Amino acid sequence: MSLVNPDLLKERSGVSFPNEELTLFIFGGPEETKKKRWLISLLDVNKNPVLKNEDKHFIPRDKYYIRSLEKMKKLFQIKKQHDIDGEDWNFLLLSTGEPMLPILHDVLFIPTLEGQMSHEQLEKWIPLAKDYAIFGCYAQTELGHGSNVRRLETTATYIHETDEFEIHSPTLTSTKWWPGGLARTSTHAVIFARLIIDGKDYGVHSFVVQLRGENHKPLPGIDVGDIGPKFGFNNIDNGFLRFTHVRIPRDQMCMKFSKVSRDGKYSTPSHAKVVYGTLVTARIYLVERSSFALAKALCIAIRYSLVRKQGNDTTNNHNESIVLDYQFLQYRLFNSLSIVYTLLFVGKWMKDLNEINEKKISEGDVSLMADIHSISSGLKALCTDLVMESLNDIILACGGHGYLRSSGIPSIVDDYAQSPIVEGDNTILQLQTGRYLIKAFENAKNGRPTPATLFYLKDYSRILSERSSATTWEELTDPNEQIKALTHYHTRILAKLISNLEESSKNHPQGYEGAKSDYMIDIINVSRAYCYTITITSANEGLESIKTTYSNIYPILRVLINLFFSNYIIKYSGEFLLDNYFNSNHIKIFELGIKNCLKTIRPDAIGLVDSWEFSDNMLNSALGRYDGNVYEALYNWAKLDPSNLAQEKGEYIGYNEVLKDIYSKEYLKGINRSKL
Amino acid sequence: MSLVNPDLLKERSGVSFPNEELTLFIFGGPEETKKKRWLISLLDVNKNPVLKNEDKHFIPRDKYYIRSLEKMKKLFQIKKQHDIDGEDWNFLLLSTGEPMLPILHDVLFIPTLEGQMSHEQLEKWIPLAKDYAIFGCYAQTELGHGSNVRRLETTATYIHETDEFEIHSPTLTSTKWWPGGLARTSTHAVIFARLIIDGKDYGVHSFVVQLRGENHKPLPGIDVGDIGPKFGFNNIDNGFLRFTHVRIPRDQMCMKFSKVSRDGKYSTPSHAKVVYGTLVTARIYLVERSSFALAKALCIAIRYSLVRKQGNDTTNNHNESIVLDYQFLQYRLFNSLSIVYTLLFVGKWMKDLNEINEKKISEGDVSLMADIHSISSGLKALCTDLVMESLNDIILACGGHGYLRSSGIPSIVDDYAQSPIVEGDNTILQLQTGRYLIKAFENAKNGRPTPATLFYLKDYSRILSERSSATTWEELTDPNEQIKALTHYHTRILAKLISNLEESSKNHPQGYEGAKSDYMIDIINVSRAYCYTITITSANEGLESIKTTYSNIYPILRVLINLFFSNYIIKYSGEFLLDNYFNSNHIKIFELGIKNCLKTIRPDAIGLVDSWEFSDNMLNSALGRYDGNVYEALYNWAKLDPSNLAQEKGEYIGYNEVLKDIYSKEYLKGINRSKL
Ligand SMILES: Cc1cc2nc3c(=O)[nH]c(=O)nc-3n(C[C@H](O)[C@H](O)[C@H](O)COP(=O)(O)OP(=O)(O)OC[C@H]3O[C@@H](n4cnc5c(N)ncnc54)[C@H](O)[C@@H]3O)c2cc1C
Ligand SMILES: Cc1cc2nc3c(=O)[nH]c(=O)nc-3n(C[C@H](O)[C@H](O)[C@H](O)COP(=O)(O)OP(=O)(O)OC[C@H]3O[C@@H](n4cnc5c(N)ncnc54)[C@H](O)[C@@H]3O)c2cc1C
Repeated sequence: MSLVNPDLLKERSGVSFPNEELTLFIFGGPEETKKKRWLISLLDVNKNPVLKNEDKHFIPRDKYYIRSLEKMKKLFQIKKQHDIDGEDWNFLLLSTGEPMLPILHDVLFIPTLEGQMSHEQLEKWIPLAKDYAIFGCYAQTELGHGSNVRRLETTATYIHETDEFEIHSPTLTSTKWWPGGLARTSTHAVIFARLIIDGKDYGVHSFVVQLRGENHKPLPGIDVGDIGPKFGFNNIDNGFLRFTHVRIPRDQMCMKFSKVSRDGKYSTPSHAKVVYGTLVTARIYLVERSSFALAKALCIAIRYSLVRKQGNDTTNNHNESIVLDYQFLQYRLFNSLSIVYTLLFVGKWMKDLNEINEKKISEGDVSLMADIHSISSGLKALCTDLVMESLNDIILACGGHGYLRSSGIPSIVDDYAQSPIVEGDNTILQLQTGRYLIKAFENAKNGRPTPATLFYLKDYSRILSERSSATTWEELTDPNEQIKALTHYHTRILAKLISNLEESSKNHPQGYEGAKSDYMIDIINVSRAYCYTITITSANEGLESIKTTYSNIYPILRVLINLFFSNYIIKYSGEFLLDNYFNSNHIKIFELGIKNCLKTIRPDAIGLVDSWEFSDNMLNSALGRYDGNVYEALYNWAKLDPSNLAQEKGEYIGYNEVLKDIYSKEYLKGINRSKL
Repeated sequence: MSLVNPDLLKERSGVSFPNEELTLFIFGGPEETKKKRWLISLLDVNKNPVLKNEDKHFIPRDKYYIRSLEKMKKLFQIKKQHDIDGEDWNFLLLSTGEPMLPILHDVLFIPTLEGQMSHEQLEKWIPLAKDYAIFGCYAQTELGHGSNVRRLETTATYIHETDEFEIHSPTLTSTKWWPGGLARTSTHAVIFARLIIDGKDYGVHSFVVQLRGENHKPLPGIDVGDIGPKFGFNNIDNGFLRFTHVRIPRDQMCMKFSKVSRDGKYSTPSHAKVVYGTLVTARIYLVERSSFALAKALCIAIRYSLVRKQGNDTTNNHNESIVLDYQFLQYRLFNSLSIVYTLLFVGKWMKDLNEINEKKISEGDVSLMADIHSISSGLKALCTDLVMESLNDIILACGGHGYLRSSGIPSIVDDYAQSPIVEGDNTILQLQTGRYLIKAFENAKNGRPTPATLFYLKDYSRILSERSSATTWEELTDPNEQIKALTHYHTRILAKLISNLEESSKNHPQGYEGAKSDYMIDIINVSRAYCYTITITSANEGLESIKTTYSNIYPILRVLINLFFSNYIIKYSGEFLLDNYFNSNHIKIFELGIKNCLKTIRPDAIGLVDSWEFSDNMLNSALGRYDGNVYEALYNWAKLDPSNLAQEKGEYIGYNEVLKDIYSKEYLKGINRSKL
């Protein structure tokens, strides 16, 4: 066991709050904390060396995949031994520090079956799936179609004679493309295909198809494989899948809602949309988890920035500065820290709202459905965008060493980079949220009811007339003032958008719908501004609600939320100055306030990342180690590189193959200068 | 040869200008174009299959390195055969589509020797180096010190007895760390070490050290190896290097300026700083090349967005839209396109200025030196930041397929991600530029002379009092108005900074210098604003100067520069509204103008990327192919994945190793639920 770096020790002793309290808050209370700590302890690499992530950057992709399967096997054992399920299981997977295949089976495949299969079907399939006797993937996207699900091309044609569906990929572009776990792992897939009966196309429905048989061999008519290496996420086998007239029994169409009878009769209930319901859950999951990836990267960056000393030695009594003492680095990293904690509140809020909705639905009340759908879309986009931007900044903020895989940051970045795309492309999600806002505002304008979460739109004229009367930092960052400012802003640009749309649609050949296509930028701005409002609102309300229960961490979290808010105002200052909601004096107060926040956060920085209790194996980072001994770690890690191991045996990779030839210049002997 | 996708064919026929004219401009005139086309033709993969990049994502790192050496060997043959050198050689290397090792030798190692060695030394070393009989790297950075070069720890102690230097790494943190080409390729290094004579430390100097001897074996006392995999740049062998009392002859200290005589006497000329001069050249190179990486990524993204059809089929006569017809995607990609062309002008300007400077220096006139230093620092930071932000956006703008390595975009992103860090961390560079601006302004304020490029600061009070009187888009985007707006802005915040510094320094224990540390954010903002001014100025002046010679492309380039400018104003609108330089009406005009620019650019988009004449091998992208047959390419490429090749032979990677066990559930038999 190495000793902890003395600089880090000192930092840890200077934190203004007890870490324990912050951990309790992050993990969700004493019970949850106890459980989560226990779950993390199950992953101890001393007991389970197979869970070590250390060499992942040195091994080729196929080996990396196999290594992940071995981890998965170990996790299944742990799961069975300790009867872990549901959210605990997800947390366990997350805590391995790597993308884990079971997520695809447990968070996409099973919930899709649960959402779309009839009772009898569930009785057959769920036990198999829960037992991992079969392994499934979610196969919706095709080479030619991702976002526009209505245009999927795979067909499922009902064959009266045999009471089967024939699954077929009529074109190259109909090849299923992307499903995670499809390429090598899955035995089954839930696929989305056009239902065809007697030549009539009933649109996209879901079916369960077995992909592989004995010894894992693909079944006849099934062309399945890996789509190749990706930016990140390379231990996951995203695959392609092509069907050549593959038959499945009729009862493998998911028939909770739409049904096909033995005589080929199609029936469907009135409420559609439900087919893609899994994605809403997946989006909510992305919102909930958005702070997590960022917290990991920041834990690395902040620990490193507290042991890295560089520069300033001419003015600083000939001692070099701890780099986190530089204002600009604080500015970069603490802004990200403010995002982490703000999103933590949003995630909790989203989760609660979803639970309320689910309870309502179980009571037959669908009044929150549309809200949940739109809010989760817009928030998924906002949260993943914010995290992605921050991650891209963090990798650069660590200087050269952050660029090394052994820093742990590159894989956080490239694994996460899919999040703005999957479970709905962020642009498209924001357009959906924007449309919902447009409709809500039109309703408000015409005195019709608005969705519950947008109740305030009925007061839009009052909101538009408001200006800030605050004159101090305290007043400006008062929770109500924060919410008021953002509500004003999104309402203003929403109102402006509506009047622009009304005006333009008069001359647009495709009317109102057509006009919208000229205002896509504005629609997305509106969605963003609205989701920022939700974010600021839920963070402030969430924080105020814990003021007494978590009184020791309240002050620093208040600073972080204020910082998030102030950065927002400064970033969009033009929008607030435009109609004099704020004036130049307000802006000055915000700018100064931001600098003061940085100063306040500085001594607490280490506590704010330590409290997440990430294990060293999970961070898998030479720079982010708990003990802060970064240089030893970088050096020892490098020594494991295959080329260094080879060199120890006297093999110089590249030398015999090529370099020898180059340095001897033999290979140039025959070559003479040609005339131009 | 596959047929060109008809959508692309149609797009190509609708471009408003002849591509040829734009290519001439990009390549720098008819002569240069002819030469560059010839250089590109030398890389034809049909003639030189070893130059193919196709499988680079499927092979492990060691193989990737060897493959690059094979390419290097082929390039050396081509170089010799056609007597290619200087910029042509750099262009050839760049056109391979991959990071190429010789860059490190030719752009860092040789110029360092040239800049720092005496005549006699050059006579010995340069022929060897030019011939690649030795291969060198630039070894400055250490584990513990990158930006703060003054604190490097490696020592070079003069040994009177033997007339040698003893090179030693006294600590772990003194290990050289990062030099490209060091780990496996280099035979020699130019290293930076503290010169110690008779116990006295003379600071950091440069020395040439041989690293490897016969059969490439590291020489005694030299511990050299690879620092391990990185975010990108993985065919390059960045290395570590530790010395244990290694002796080199005295004449391997670079002695152009500072000298050590046989009797251990040290002498040095008055002007210091020169030691790190190579980095200025390298920065200028990064500025010049910044548009290139972005153009590559955009070429892929725009071609793909013109063949990808997705959505909008309900309003669009049941045809799906070409995704580049969506306003928001135009907004994202054309903003990047405006950056490409703006930076192309900046690069040309920077290059010209550098040539003027070099000419002056050769005539003994160093008056431009400080300008070049500061401008190249700030511009390097601005350009690489802009490109990095754009690249991060482009990878997300392509939907799911952009996330695949076969899209070609991920490697552009992760190879480029080092640019904001290397040759000077962007933060630190901007602080340098900021300091130079502070000094210049103080001079102006006190009636002392300002640097040539900042001549206008003497009129600062007039500049500060200016407001825009423009009332139309044409007036607002008039070249002079663009320059005026940015000059006003950076002068205003510079003046504000100075007055803040003066005020704060009164109470700051470390005075003015200390006060600066509380204004780092502001100093960096000033540097950015100033470099934007240079950017806008050089782009507008550059463009106006080709108005008649390149009259067919002038109109679209004008739109692109206007778009760049307008986006800037909108992004920083708060700053311009704050002192009423612009008013809300101006902002409205800019917002509308941006949308109009997008419309104008849309039909020319394909021409604006095609004209760069990137070869398919260079882009190495299934999405960016010239023929637009993206789906075939994605599919065929995936088929090459090793796991798919194995499967064709009946081997299912992961199955026998692990999955079999999992699906049989044998491995769970012994495991029983434990009690909590
Ligand atoms: C790592 C990863 C894992 C995945 N896992 C799965 C999985 O398990 N199962 C599965 O079925 N799929 C999976 N996918 C696929 C994923 O769901 C799709 O890639 C995603 O929905 C985006 O769709 P697309 O690729 O068709 O993008 P496109 O729709 O083609 O988007 C291309 C561009 O066009 C724009 N655009 C498209 N339509 C519109 C519109 N109407 N208005 C405005 N702009 C528009 C987009 O914003 C984007 O910029 C995965 C993808 C990735 C990257
Ligand atoms: C791909 C790659 C290739 C490289 N190739 C070479 C090579 O060939 N030869 C070679 O010698 N080196 C090489 N390097 C090293 C590179 O030059 C350094 O990594 C770079 O200069 C940054 O220095 P650093 O890592 O010490 O960052 P640090 O200085 O440690 O920076 C860490 C953080 O602190 C901040 N910071 C540091 N000092 C200050 C200050 N005074 N004021 C405000 N903020 C500060 C930085 O902005 C950054 O956010 C390479 C690096 C990479 C990534």
